[in-house]
Amino acid sequence: MNYADMHVRDDTYLVPVTLPYIPGNEVVGRTAEGKRFVGLTLGGGYAEQAHVHRRTAWEVPDDVSDEQAVALCLQGNSAYHLLHTVADVKSGQTVVIPAAAGGVGSIAVQLAKGIGAKVIALASTKEKRQLAEDLGADATLDSTSENLTEEIKEAASGPVQVALEMTGGPTFHAIAAALAPHGRLAVYGYASGQTTDVSTKVLMEQSISVSGFWLPSMFGDRNALPTSMKALFNAVRANSLRPVLGHVYPLHEAGAAHAALAARTHIGKLCLDTAG
Amino acid sequence: MNYADMHVRDDTYLVPVTLPYIPGNEVVGRTAEGKRFVGLTLGGGYAEQAHVHRRTAWEVPDDVSDEQAVALCLQGNSAYHLLHTVADVKSGQTVVIPAAAGGVGSIAVQLAKGIGAKVIALASTKEKRQLAEDLGADATLDSTSENLTEEIKEAASGPVQVALEMTGGPTFHAIAAALAPHGRLAVYGYASGQTTDVSTKVLMEQSISVSGFWLPSMFGDRNALPTSMKALFNAVRANSLRPVLGHVYPLHEAGAAHAALAARTHIGKLCLDTAG
Repeated sequence: MNYADMHVRDDTYLVPVTLPYIPGNEVVGRTAEGKRFVGLTLGGGYAEQAHVHRRTAWEVPDDVSDEQAVALCLQGNSAYHLLHTVADVKSGQTVVIPAAAGGVGSIAVQLAKGIGAKVIALASTKEKRQLAEDLGADATLDSTSENLTEEIKEAASGPVQVALEMTGGPTFHAIAAALAPHGRLAVYGYASGQTTDVSTKVLMEQSISVSGFWLPSMFGDRNALPTSMKALFNAVRANSLRPVLGHVYPLHEAGAAHAALAARTHIGKLCLDTAG
Repeated sequence: MNYADMHVRDDTYLVPVTLPYIPGNEVVGRTAEGKRFVGLTLGGGYAEQAHVHRRTAWEVPDDVSDEQAVALCLQGNSAYHLLHTVADVKSGQTVVIPAAAGGVGSIAVQLAKGIGAKVIALASTKEKRQLAEDLGADATLDSTSENLTEEIKEAASGPVQVALEMTGGPTFHAIAAALAPHGRLAVYGYASGQTTDVSTKVLMEQSISVSGFWLPSMFGDRNALPTSMKALFNAVRANSLRPVLGHVYPLHEAGAAHAALAARTHIGKLCLDTAG
């Protein structure tokens, strides 16, 4: 399950929803031949059986669990390409990572540390900030603070080179205002429900970039996802990456799982077990 | 002179104007010791004498003329960093360059060809498009066309990787719509007077980037401008770059020069001779 499932249910997502519709954008399971695969889908994931395209499905190494694989497939690949492909984070740069206890954020914190970046993690509760610290964040901030821009600059000892963004509205503007000249903001969601209008005048005044990212944009590149999927599997097997796993709900409790997602109080990847 | 001088006169530029104010953002001339220097200023260029900071002033090689030096200093450095620093253009990519007969555009066409990119040049008149072709553009399009998006895609045989933008409003959106996934739009002006609001939802749907660029953002980087200035001087000396020079007005005809700038009918760099 992903936070985007909230938008799909409201029909406020990037792609319009036509009923009847089965949500779910990643699956893990066994093929008829007994091989274990994880794959991306454009909807259809909350199902007992799924067809996946061979270019967006990967065999799961034996020492990676189902829950780990499904956490890496959409959110891990997103974190990887946000940092590498979109923002091009380099060692020594400072990166702001919001929702740092979330699916993308918790992996992004670890990957950014692996690149050699300084990580400033944002999260809304003490428990989530503690998790971000445990994952390696150099500093953590309360994402609901009124003085987010100043607090980011203070934690970074100045403006920052890179920030991810997935909230929208005032949070977007507060994070953008903390960017250094030629800083890059990589947007992959709008959990507040507010998409944001950015003025080109502000972009010029600060000389900054704003990028949008949606994982299916990588489907046309035959090398991008195989490269990131392999790197993510290898990092988990080498114990240098730890996907944060949450509760696994049986399919008939999908409603309770959605309530947990919407409340944004959970920690770790929520999954549905459609076999149960 | 630069198109930005129009905004300064209207007090619609990125930086507010306080009266009394002398416009002009670059100067060329001799020091008391007789050395010939070109330099960037933040205002103050329309003057008989100017102080420039040594970090934004460069001695002009003997085989580069005053008019060439002044065309390279602000507009040449801007074109260089738009292509290299902001958009990171690579050989084989397609780049859309608007105002291709203008100060930044005419240099950008030549630099982009030098990188090995395919250049689609936009200009509003037949004469300007002819100039862009003479400078090496692979295709030229009428920037006032109603079907700009489709015409760009047709000329590029598909969506494009990079575009510069300096008009704003509907032109901005028409060019942005022609970008490929992970395409980059580098904005360095808003000649229409309309700054543009970009929705992060659109950026995500297309998975594209929009960057703002203002040359003074480079002042903090001690290597950036010396590197580009040297490359530009060398390219002119090697005859691989030809700054397009327009009329030189005496200082007391600054009004007529502004009228020519505002009409956007001129071709080539307009200069004021403050010694006359």
